[in-house]
Amino acid sequence: MNWQLFFNPGSIAIVGASPKKVKTGNAILSSLIKDDFPGKIFTVNPNVSQVLGIPCYPDLKSIGEVPDLVIITTPSQYVIDLLQQCAQLRVKAVVIITSGLKEINEHGTHMEESIAQIAKTSGIEIIGPNCIGLMSPHTKLNASFAGSLPLPGKIGYFSQSGSILAATIDIARSLDIGFSRVVNIGNKAHLSELDMIKAFADDPETKVIAGYLETFDDGDNFIRQAELISREKPILLIKSGVTAAGARAALSHTARLTGSERAFDCVFERAGVVRCASIKHQLDIAWAFAEQPLPRGPNVAIIASAGGSGIMAADAIEKEGLQLAALSDSTINTLSTKLDNALNVNNPVEIMGNILAGGYELALRQVLDDPGVHIVLVLLTPHALTQCTGVVQAIIRVAKEKTDKPILACLPGVKRVEKEVNMLSSAHIPCFDFPEKAVATIKAMVNYSMWRSRPKRVIKLFPVNRRKVEKIIERHLKDGVSEVVDMEVKTILKAYGFVIPEGMIATSPQQAVNFANQIGYPVVLKVWSPGIIHKTEVGGVKLGLANEEEVKDAFDLMMYRIPKIRPNVNIPGILVEKMCDKGQEVILGMNRDPRFGPLIMFGTGGKLVEILKDVAFYPAPLTAAEAKEMLINTRTYNILTGINQGEKGVAIDAIAEALQRVSQLVTEFPQIRELDINPFVVGREGTTPVAVDATIILDVG
Amino acid sequence: MNWQLFFNPGSIAIVGASPKKVKTGNAILSSLIKDDFPGKIFTVNPNVSQVLGIPCYPDLKSIGEVPDLVIITTPSQYVIDLLQQCAQLRVKAVVIITSGLKEINEHGTHMEESIAQIAKTSGIEIIGPNCIGLMSPHTKLNASFAGSLPLPGKIGYFSQSGSILAATIDIARSLDIGFSRVVNIGNKAHLSELDMIKAFADDPETKVIAGYLETFDDGDNFIRQAELISREKPILLIKSGVTAAGARAALSHTARLTGSERAFDCVFERAGVVRCASIKHQLDIAWAFAEQPLPRGPNVAIIASAGGSGIMAADAIEKEGLQLAALSDSTINTLSTKLDNALNVNNPVEIMGNILAGGYELALRQVLDDPGVHIVLVLLTPHALTQCTGVVQAIIRVAKEKTDKPILACLPGVKRVEKEVNMLSSAHIPCFDFPEKAVATIKAMVNYSMWRSRPKRVIKLFPVNRRKVEKIIERHLKDGVSEVVDMEVKTILKAYGFVIPEGMIATSPQQAVNFANQIGYPVVLKVWSPGIIHKTEVGGVKLGLANEEEVKDAFDLMMYRIPKIRPNVNIPGILVEKMCDKGQEVILGMNRDPRFGPLIMFGTGGKLVEILKDVAFYPAPLTAAEAKEMLINTRTYNILTGINQGEKGVAIDAIAEALQRVSQLVTEFPQIRELDINPFVVGREGTTPVAVDATIILDVG
Repeated sequence: MNWQLFFNPGSIAIVGASPKKVKTGNAILSSLIKDDFPGKIFTVNPNVSQVLGIPCYPDLKSIGEVPDLVIITTPSQYVIDLLQQCAQLRVKAVVIITSGLKEINEHGTHMEESIAQIAKTSGIEIIGPNCIGLMSPHTKLNASFAGSLPLPGKIGYFSQSGSILAATIDIARSLDIGFSRVVNIGNKAHLSELDMIKAFADDPETKVIAGYLETFDDGDNFIRQAELISREKPILLIKSGVTAAGARAALSHTARLTGSERAFDCVFERAGVVRCASIKHQLDIAWAFAEQPLPRGPNVAIIASAGGSGIMAADAIEKEGLQLAALSDSTINTLSTKLDNALNVNNPVEIMGNILAGGYELALRQVLDDPGVHIVLVLLTPHALTQCTGVVQAIIRVAKEKTDKPILACLPGVKRVEKEVNMLSSAHIPCFDFPEKAVATIKAMVNYSMWRSRPKRVIKLFPVNRRKVEKIIERHLKDGVSEVVDMEVKTILKAYGFVIPEGMIATSPQQAVNFANQIGYPVVLKVWSPGIIHKTEVGGVKLGLANEEEVKDAFDLMMYRIPKIRPNVNIPGILVEKMCDKGQEVILGMNRDPRFGPLIMFGTGGKLVEILKDVAFYPAPLTAAEAKEMLINTRTYNILTGINQGEKGVAIDAIAEALQRVSQLVTEFPQIRELDINPFVVGREGTTPVAVDATIILDVG
Repeated sequence: MNWQLFFNPGSIAIVGASPKKVKTGNAILSSLIKDDFPGKIFTVNPNVSQVLGIPCYPDLKSIGEVPDLVIITTPSQYVIDLLQQCAQLRVKAVVIITSGLKEINEHGTHMEESIAQIAKTSGIEIIGPNCIGLMSPHTKLNASFAGSLPLPGKIGYFSQSGSILAATIDIARSLDIGFSRVVNIGNKAHLSELDMIKAFADDPETKVIAGYLETFDDGDNFIRQAELISREKPILLIKSGVTAAGARAALSHTARLTGSERAFDCVFERAGVVRCASIKHQLDIAWAFAEQPLPRGPNVAIIASAGGSGIMAADAIEKEGLQLAALSDSTINTLSTKLDNALNVNNPVEIMGNILAGGYELALRQVLDDPGVHIVLVLLTPHALTQCTGVVQAIIRVAKEKTDKPILACLPGVKRVEKEVNMLSSAHIPCFDFPEKAVATIKAMVNYSMWRSRPKRVIKLFPVNRRKVEKIIERHLKDGVSEVVDMEVKTILKAYGFVIPEGMIATSPQQAVNFANQIGYPVVLKVWSPGIIHKTEVGGVKLGLANEEEVKDAFDLMMYRIPKIRPNVNIPGILVEKMCDKGQEVILGMNRDPRFGPLIMFGTGGKLVEILKDVAFYPAPLTAAEAKEMLINTRTYNILTGINQGEKGVAIDAIAEALQRVSQLVTEFPQIRELDINPFVVGREGTTPVAVDATIILDVG
């Protein structure tokens, strides 16, 4: 996207400019004029001679030069024709304000396909339709009906919803938060959220990228790009419509457990995208990123006036999983010697009295110098006798000198702290009205900073027998069979380095006994038939057979009983497997998300998986660190590592490796739609886990 | 508390009134004058002749009449003497502003004890010390230095922190939220939060009670009173300092799992108290309670302009566990026939276009008439062309006619919706800036409404053998032994109707065998010794003994091995018990909270309890419904009721009954500090669960 044409055009033509106030073509022209757009403005309307004092051209061609940016505000039936005119004139950038397309009917959807087609063949870049326009405060461009231009700032903002955009900039204005660019991408017939984050990544005026989205057009690609861009600039997203969207067809455990919400969470996490819960939450975080340096760790020091908000902030820090910094002895000594009106010199540092400026200045300097402190939160909850302005001047003085650690402020209140909050804002110190919000912002800064400093991602590739898997999958696809089961799914897993229980298909009791004698008792018998998926339902699984006689009996009973229950099913044989050693049962899985590709799953095994929903997801391919992290994010991890005395942990690293192997398998075979290894039985450290049972579902198209 | 003397005094004396602006005695006098206090004001200060034009008396006696309210603002060394003067003059109500007492040193703590003593002997009611005063907008009383008087309203507010109070009323003013009374209870030397909620309960100007607390003085009593008052007026509390306070001595499972946070949650829930997360959250909820009727159910209808906020509200409703109302066919038909600019006529009803007033009015009327709708949330996210005022007028028109269901509004934005938000406020329709906040408020209203409509609590008393328990407890207390174990704890449980495994102490292998033959195999042997608490650690438990020989062997091995491990311990015998049938293991417990009394606990058994922390707490005594509710609040409930196909549920009602029996036991014996029944083994429906092992810890003082 050529963002300079959109955000810094030398000339703009408004097609459908209208003298009527209720028309968008009037509102946008008014905005451009009122906010002093410095470039040329042309208006196009064959029915009137001028609009707001600007003479109208009957069509684009008559202008006599090619405008950098064309804004279409006409009724929808003229849009396609106008775009074709733009193509002939070699216009490069178009914003279509016009609504009433895809969002109302089928005809509109077809028109948007035509718009996309014209964009493709002509090379025109198009924003909209169904949008309220765009803004660029630094270049005094207000081509929108979202209200007047916001303050100039460092936040590049895009929104799928015009009204959320209008609300966001209005709220930002009340907080003195500025923007570099603001754009409503509307129905996204051509340019989408992906183009916006790429444009903002290149834009030197933009330090922070923020967006509001209801749908993703190309989730996988968006996330890949976001991951690259997040290394340079934070991306803050609100994704709404998540719960309603959760009604997806669910075939396996993994799919049932994924849910849309979880998919977004894990792909955002992987890409370093900061997920925001509300407009205010997003603005708070964007503000802090725009104005303050990144923290180098999670340790927060609090300085507060005596009273409740220091306690509330400390509560919030514990709840968010951050750390109250342990101040050094030297800091504590200095504070207790020099701070004569301190209630508490440990963290939170609490300062008493009405005239506090000196105490705040001293305390802020000291904690900023303490190497154990990564972030400082300064709280001031004044009453009528507090000399609030002096404290704020002191904070600003120190912040100007010491710029390497983030400083956030919190002054609960509205009118009575208005002046001081404005002073702090002007001095680039974000100031919050509630301790919890300041702490939630710190949490986002710490998380992002930790994400940025993570080591380079290295995907380990295990030596595998890829050809073997290819053959099985090809045959299934040829036959239109989507489910890979029994011996074949085990062959696939074995080819990718999994240990599976030794087993063979026996067609007679004697064959079963011979094999059991060979692998050793106890053994398991499982009916083997392509027509029987749920073996236990037909009595087709018999565990713990200890000798020849038990194997023979079990074999004959299955062969006698199962055909009575399922008379039309062919039973070629019975699987004899070595009984697995005792161990902890877990599940490994994969579900291919329609937007984000393969999500690897780890969770508790057995029937607890459905009840506890104690599962972790992460997008493939996995690094070793990510696989380990997935484990640690579950409560199951505590069970596995054995929190009880005297119990040794199980083979955690082996599970992490298995997750990476699953990741490699599903990355190399995009035909695999779902995979479940359940149970995956894990023994003590040093032992190799066994993939006891598994299912693979292919995309037969 | 005689709240009329405090909030509607005919005359006030300010002791320590000062001409110096930085003194509280000056600030409070200024506030009284500025906010037009209609009663008489006297000032007392022997060193000056007048303050702010009001002549000073040298002491209280010289005034010549007894003021209704005395406000002390002098340095702390004069406070006790002044109170004694008040006592002699028969003053009834005193506010001590003076700080520097309990909060700074031991001497201050002693002084506060004297203050409490004077209050007790003289009958003076005292607020403070270390407070910023009180306010009553309806009576134009501003005896504080918290800023100017808030708007008059229906919220009675008390705070332990002066600065949080000042911040709260400042924020409330910016939202047009008014108060009936506002009071800072400070160090609570005499009157406390308990007196405040009782006073507000009696106060006809107060419809909603709200408070901020860091510590509870008499938690148990507060909660009992709160439960009574909540039936008439909602009580909204912020309790801070919860996480730091969590570091309590922990002896048993129950204690480790209780935590302070959980204790507050469950006692607040029982008492119908609405727990608030932040100042803003509290004000939002208080506002809605003050202005709107209670909802009669959880079904929310949303009316929104096209755009993102309807989606965000629907997301929030699902996340909060509320219901989007299913509109009736008749409502949907009417809306689709008459609403020509609707994007969606189902819930959320989405209305398109710029001129929306007619659509909103029609839709609001229709959904309010729908019997399936309990609450309506009206959202409007305008852009520059939306006719916002018309929509708001329509909402107000309908709301005036239809007053039986709560209507809340949400207009995201600040400046550009300021006029409309003010219109809604004036029309008693709370209006929020973000959908999530409106929905969080609805959640609080629905919860409270459901709490109010719950049936009368009836505590079932089971016939028990109380005398037997008394004897055991008395003997332990006499001997100074806190832990009741083994046969004696089982005798206690049996006396309260629990089934315990049949068992006896054997002193010889033959005795063990005889008893085993009598109760039937398999049996369990457990070493029986007061010196051995953790039997498994010394090899003192042997399960599943199937015949005479195994019993003899196990007996002799214990008698041979254990004395080697614990040479100084006396082993009088070995317990022989019938092996319990297989079943689900759960834990029943009780931990006596220092503030709130006995909290009954239910949770998963086995080692999962520590890992999952899947436990529910509720204050005793329990009703049958509450016991059942405790079960349902755990994930364990799903395991027990068997969500897997084909698995029958277990004896849920028997667990609920057992919880009530625990509740009765610990209520009748306050000497019991902690109780753990672990495991409590529960079989299928129709069977009786067995209390396999248990510990009781007594308060030996």
